[in-house]
Amino acid sequence: MVGIIMGSKSDLHIMQDAADILKELQVPYELNVVSAHRTPEKMFTYARSAAERGLKVIIAGAGGAAHLPGMVASLTTLPVIGVPVKSSNSIDGWDSILSILQMPNGVPVATVALNAAKNAGILAAQMLSIADDQLVNRLAAFKDELRKKVEENPI
Amino acid sequence: MVGIIMGSKSDLHIMQDAADILKELQVPYELNVVSAHRTPEKMFTYARSAAERGLKVIIAGAGGAAHLPGMVASLTTLPVIGVPVKSSNSIDGWDSILSILQMPNGVPVATVALNAAKNAGILAAQMLSIADDQLVNRLAAFKDELRKKVEENPI
Amino acid sequence: MVGIIMGSKSDLHIMQDAADILKELQVPYELNVVSAHRTPEKMFTYARSAAERGLKVIIAGAGGAAHLPGMVASLTTLPVIGVPVKSSNSIDGWDSILSILQMPNGVPVATVALNAAKNAGILAAQMLSIADDQLVNRLAAFKDELRKKVEENPI
Amino acid sequence: MVGIIMGSKSDLHIMQDAADILKELQVPYELNVVSAHRTPEKMFTYARSAAERGLKVIIAGAGGAAHLPGMVASLTTLPVIGVPVKSSNSIDGWDSILSILQMPNGVPVATVALNAAKNAGILAAQMLSIADDQLVNRLAAFKDELRKKVEENPI
Amino acid sequence: MVGIIMGSKSDLHIMQDAADILKELQVPYELNVVSAHRTPEKMFTYARSAAERGLKVIIAGAGGAAHLPGMVASLTTLPVIGVPVKSSNSIDGWDSILSILQMPNGVPVATVALNAAKNAGILAAQMLSIADDQLVNRLAAFKDELRKKVEENPI
Amino acid sequence: MVGIIMGSKSDLHIMQDAADILKELQVPYELNVVSAHRTPEKMFTYARSAAERGLKVIIAGAGGAAHLPGMVASLTTLPVIGVPVKSSNSIDGWDSILSILQMPNGVPVATVALNAAKNAGILAAQMLSIADDQLVNRLAAFKDELRKKVEENPI
Amino acid sequence: MVGIIMGSKSDLHIMQDAADILKELQVPYELNVVSAHRTPEKMFTYARSAAERGLKVIIAGAGGAAHLPGMVASLTTLPVIGVPVKSSNSIDGWDSILSILQMPNGVPVATVALNAAKNAGILAAQMLSIADDQLVNRLAAFKDELRKKVEENPI
Amino acid sequence: MVGIIMGSKSDLHIMQDAADILKELQVPYELNVVSAHRTPEKMFTYARSAAERGLKVIIAGAGGAAHLPGMVASLTTLPVIGVPVKSSNSIDGWDSILSILQMPNGVPVATVALNAAKNAGILAAQMLSIADDQLVNRLAAFKDELRKKVEENPI
Repeated sequence: MVGIIMGSKSDLHIMQDAADILKELQVPYELNVVSAHRTPEKMFTYARSAAERGLKVIIAGAGGAAHLPGMVASLTTLPVIGVPVKSSNSIDGWDSILSILQMPNGVPVATVALNAAKNAGILAAQMLSIADDQLVNRLAAFKDELRKKVEENPI
Repeated sequence: MVGIIMGSKSDLHIMQDAADILKELQVPYELNVVSAHRTPEKMFTYARSAAERGLKVIIAGAGGAAHLPGMVASLTTLPVIGVPVKSSNSIDGWDSILSILQMPNGVPVATVALNAAKNAGILAAQMLSIADDQLVNRLAAFKDELRKKVEENPI
Repeated sequence: MVGIIMGSKSDLHIMQDAADILKELQVPYELNVVSAHRTPEKMFTYARSAAERGLKVIIAGAGGAAHLPGMVASLTTLPVIGVPVKSSNSIDGWDSILSILQMPNGVPVATVALNAAKNAGILAAQMLSIADDQLVNRLAAFKDELRKKVEENPI
Repeated sequence: MVGIIMGSKSDLHIMQDAADILKELQVPYELNVVSAHRTPEKMFTYARSAAERGLKVIIAGAGGAAHLPGMVASLTTLPVIGVPVKSSNSIDGWDSILSILQMPNGVPVATVALNAAKNAGILAAQMLSIADDQLVNRLAAFKDELRKKVEENPI
Repeated sequence: MVGIIMGSKSDLHIMQDAADILKELQVPYELNVVSAHRTPEKMFTYARSAAERGLKVIIAGAGGAAHLPGMVASLTTLPVIGVPVKSSNSIDGWDSILSILQMPNGVPVATVALNAAKNAGILAAQMLSIADDQLVNRLAAFKDELRKKVEENPI
Repeated sequence: MVGIIMGSKSDLHIMQDAADILKELQVPYELNVVSAHRTPEKMFTYARSAAERGLKVIIAGAGGAAHLPGMVASLTTLPVIGVPVKSSNSIDGWDSILSILQMPNGVPVATVALNAAKNAGILAAQMLSIADDQLVNRLAAFKDELRKKVEENPI
Repeated sequence: MVGIIMGSKSDLHIMQDAADILKELQVPYELNVVSAHRTPEKMFTYARSAAERGLKVIIAGAGGAAHLPGMVASLTTLPVIGVPVKSSNSIDGWDSILSILQMPNGVPVATVALNAAKNAGILAAQMLSIADDQLVNRLAAFKDELRKKVEENPI
Repeated sequence: MVGIIMGSKSDLHIMQDAADILKELQVPYELNVVSAHRTPEKMFTYARSAAERGLKVIIAGAGGAAHLPGMVASLTTLPVIGVPVKSSNSIDGWDSILSILQMPNGVPVATVALNAAKNAGILAAQMLSIADDQLVNRLAAFKDELRKKVEENPI
């Protein structure tokens, strides 16, 4: 089970891409709004109980001074994937990227490209596939599809 | 009482400036290391109990993906002053600045210049002086000193 | 009383947010256009007389080479909150941010996020609440509302 | 087994941190120099055979126009962690960060902070711990050490 | 013969400019979609066989973490011209520029301005003109046209 | 007479270059420390009285949130040349440059390159030479010297 | 007489502001398209003959790799004002600003804000006013108008 | 024959790399200091006569507001390679890069990485190799050396 969280419901149009690709890859997930700044206790509870509740990977998206991915990573040993969101209160996305990426030694966040929730989903699946050969096959098939779409659609 | 906290003891050479100017302005303070990423519970307890313990203003310094000032601000109604620290794991300070400054609506952090812990101390004193006329006088005297140092030292 | 000033009337659509949240928190305020570059004398008079006129905090918004917050801070011991405005003559807001934030030692400006006039208002209220327990309660209630809006609106 | 590769032997002083933390966490690893631009065939062979050879995660560090992590990710379904290295031919690390982070949809790279090879090692261990409860315990102990080092070393 | 390739068919509206100016300058070309990340084998084959197939110059356009120009350059001794494309997944083009421009010593990419596929075409023609006096004349005539358009169209 | 001012005596090692080239070009000048933030009244008096006292051009250097050139320009109709200084409290000079350059419509500052006080001096001389043919000759001779130094010193 | 030139007729909608304010200030001017890159000889002739033809100041606007202001400055001793234009082929204006501002020692360009052709016109008038008291009066009146517009239009 | 020019003799320690690799590849070259801003006539003559004098490619290095490569490109139909030099008057190299790279349509400059004069030399050789099979062989051998150095020097 992958936990997908975001700092604000307004980020859902971006973060839905993570859910969609996980569904396509047949990986179960749950979606929640958890705000580091507006619901800090909820965030604490969410992160502290994540492993017990059966989550294996957490995908966290946030914009501006994006503290959600890093704070969740400080509260769990699960791998945390951070999605910098170019929200309306962001400076071209630079703030989102740097406040997710530049974590101090000891507490990593696996950061993907700006708004790249789809890639966060694929990365979560890749992590789960370490112990799931079926998922490896589905990921290989997905990769093959990427290739075919390019090759079957020449200029 | 002003609470001065920093994400790492290695930031003390910067954050000491806040303590020094507060001492000069006769404002009591306490100094602590509180890390958002390495001691999240301590941070929660610190921030949640700050008002009760008699703190009136919190100064928080951090570098890189600097989540300490913003997270503390999410956990208290006290004014929080953020000092972006150009630590060794920072990209020229841009990450520290943006992850402290760009807080979402509802949860402000009063950000000062890169490494400007002295200004954080002055700002804390200015806030306290709203209800302390003696402190206003000391701040006015300090301002006068700044002026005199320039005027009495011509080229 | 909080004084809200801006460098140009064209910044009002941003700075109105500061007034609105102060009204919501029952903090009196006044709104003025004061330009550092076009009305420097007015700015001097405004800043020099601010404390006498009963202002406790000043919120100053400006864009581009934004000198208003810093110049006002040089002329008063009141705490000054700076709002970088992404005006039409700004380079993605970087100029506004840096010319407000990077004040020299001795003269701090409490800088908030780009266009974050609402946060400037909240920060002003937090400063005033140091000596106003009622306002603390209203700020706590406001914080609680932020939390509830997230929790009562799940995906 | 974690595969650690780097674009140039001159990056070893950075990438060694990944090896060291993996050793501390009792995770087996191998270290290689594989250059996307100077040994493209070796890179192809390395990435294509990685899963067969028993690698579960790949950590790739590179500086400047850093293509190694992304190209390896295009050639395997294993999760790939990218370490932007601030090498001598880098522009303050911005080139390394952006050319590793900004991967197109379909081919993620789990990017960590500039020069943060230690975090890459921890992240790799977190991924492996999804199917290894012993490793979860070691990661939890490591996290506890981080906390203790802060708490037992007050100002 | 100039080979024009791009990482995605969605870049064609930019890269067509290279084809158009080559046509105008009577330089033969071919257009292909070759993705470093989705069709890495095709890229290998394309680059390795380019000289044999009679290509003299390769123009490669890509956006975001743009690895195509650099990877092709690593696989051939032909001169490679890189066109940074400001695609939808790009951060104002900075990622595209830096991941094409900042190649390590030994493997150059001749980078042109953001979206400047027309200039890539002209540059390819200039390279070919080293051994083609007719093409020199056509380039000189083209240059003369640039001048005339300015001079014959005064304010 | 050219008035050279700087925000802090610590900028003198940069601003001296302006004085030196003016001396070489036989243009009279005066040097002063005038701080926008520490001596705002002195700045007002300086700028308001500049024309009366016989100044024809003002060169103002400052670092960080550099308000001196723009504020002086708001207080006089004399041309003001701004020198962004990369002082110790500056972020690689970006803050100095943007807070001097990005002045709003109506109040220009003639900005020169980072630390380029020598060019500020030359520019002041060029302005004065509009009404001084002798100075034109000296500027032409200076330009000729530049050329000769390159030509007489081949590789 | 002020000479206003621009690299491309497409910059006229920006550069017209310089002409308009000069007209308002009763300063004669001429407008021309002179391209450093497309009409280099015309640029040479223009700059070399500028002083003889009676020009006193040159305003040059250009975008992207903006070489016109600096090249003209290398060819004349007249003061040259550079206007960075945010043209379509510009990266948010950064390229225009840096390639105009960062001139080497010996050859200054008086740079104004991005797209600030109006300020270029005012600056040219200020330079001319050094030897024209009438123009000083008109500039003072203009400055007074700026002030009045703010003061007569309160919130 | 390849013409290597630089804006200042102080750039020689960078530009020498271009000469060295050309020598290694047995490509004749000449080295000159030609400054766009200090010796504009020499630059004109150099560029206009380059083809006649037998030059086939020009490599031009410059720092700061780096106009030399672009201006030379405007004056010849030969391919021009630009080397952004991080000189002392440069802002971390950004000014050099942008003022060389961002040339307008019609006048390309083949830009290489910051300080990458060696790559400029290789690129020049690649251009010349279009009509020189021997040089193709030497370039292939050089490429092979790059590979071997990595492969024969494992960790």
